[in-house]
Amino acid sequence: MAEFTLYVVNGSCSFASHAALEHAGADYEAIPVDFQNEEQRSEKYLAVNPKGRVPALVSGDGILTESPAILAYIAQKFPEANLAPLNDPWLFGQMQSFNAYLCATVHVAHAHKFRGYRWAKEQSSFDDMQANVPRTMTECFQLIESEMLKGPWVLGDTFSVADFYLVTMSRWLEFDEVDTRLLPAVMDHRARMHELPAVKAVAVSGG
Amino acid sequence: MAEFTLYVVNGSCSFASHAALEHAGADYEAIPVDFQNEEQRSEKYLAVNPKGRVPALVSGDGILTESPAILAYIAQKFPEANLAPLNDPWLFGQMQSFNAYLCATVHVAHAHKFRGYRWAKEQSSFDDMQANVPRTMTECFQLIESEMLKGPWVLGDTFSVADFYLVTMSRWLEFDEVDTRLLPAVMDHRARMHELPAVKAVAVSGG
Repeated sequence: MAEFTLYVVNGSCSFASHAALEHAGADYEAIPVDFQNEEQRSEKYLAVNPKGRVPALVSGDGILTESPAILAYIAQKFPEANLAPLNDPWLFGQMQSFNAYLCATVHVAHAHKFRGYRWAKEQSSFDDMQANVPRTMTECFQLIESEMLKGPWVLGDTFSVADFYLVTMSRWLEFDEVDTRLLPAVMDHRARMHELPAVKAVAVSGG
Repeated sequence: MAEFTLYVVNGSCSFASHAALEHAGADYEAIPVDFQNEEQRSEKYLAVNPKGRVPALVSGDGILTESPAILAYIAQKFPEANLAPLNDPWLFGQMQSFNAYLCATVHVAHAHKFRGYRWAKEQSSFDDMQANVPRTMTECFQLIESEMLKGPWVLGDTFSVADFYLVTMSRWLEFDEVDTRLLPAVMDHRARMHELPAVKAVAVSGG
């Protein structure tokens, strides 16, 4: 049995944790959860993660959920992989700030496309939310482009798990009808991330 | 000049970072941002935080935003305050997971009450979102009550910044029309947090 089990869904935010585990050389197994058949709401999966979401990382210690937490944990667990500025609390904080923005603002903006039922009940609200996703995702990524992505990596010269998390969401841009010509730095970052063996491996696996 | 400046809004999520700084004995100044007069969108404030949100922590190193990042940073910066399990990556991960849930799910549910314009444009959508807030906040807090809050503190015996963050949001329950009788553990936690000198001090100051 592998040291870690990661529950994943193709194309979802679990991509970041999956690629980080792969990059760190962790002993892990990725188990797909079938969202199309609502497996995340099955009794079996809810016993793993009562939130009914991915990613969920299972180890001998228990279960860990939420991408920013899993990503920082992987960085701390595998210090030799240099996936976070572990000895610089301020820069580590900047990494966490970036990850929190992706988790709580960018991912939430994206989720209004097809998961409006989380916050409303009427079809007209869902239609309104969906129509606004290109605008909100464009605004989010313009802030990333102009203020947050230091280059060449998220934190500047320091590569980190935030880079895996950013590419996870920049892979959604076309789907969310964002004009990627507005985002040259983000698109350059995405192209460079796609050259990394770990990202290639997870992308090919459908992660 | 104080070592840290924290931009805050009364009753907002900045309460957690404010109380954590106070508890840690940090040399800080809290500066209120006047949301009622939209000061967060002023040129002056956007120069501090281009996101136009609070909290924002300013130090000699620069600016740090997003509650989970600020809270973990305070814990790392003031290790003698014992505000996080800094030497236990798994438990630190659990703390981060809790904070990410508050930031990306609970706070987002709450924000649909008055900030629906972030994700939609029609008044009918705002009304629909607002009507669903008691339901979504109840669901969130029932999960916290039954699965996440270990007791006596969020992480069990280990007190942490997650406790400041939880009380910040459990203070919103009545406003969000949640039946608090469903949440005995959360309400007990809130009462005990209100006994802490740092929480008292920040609550009295209006934070």
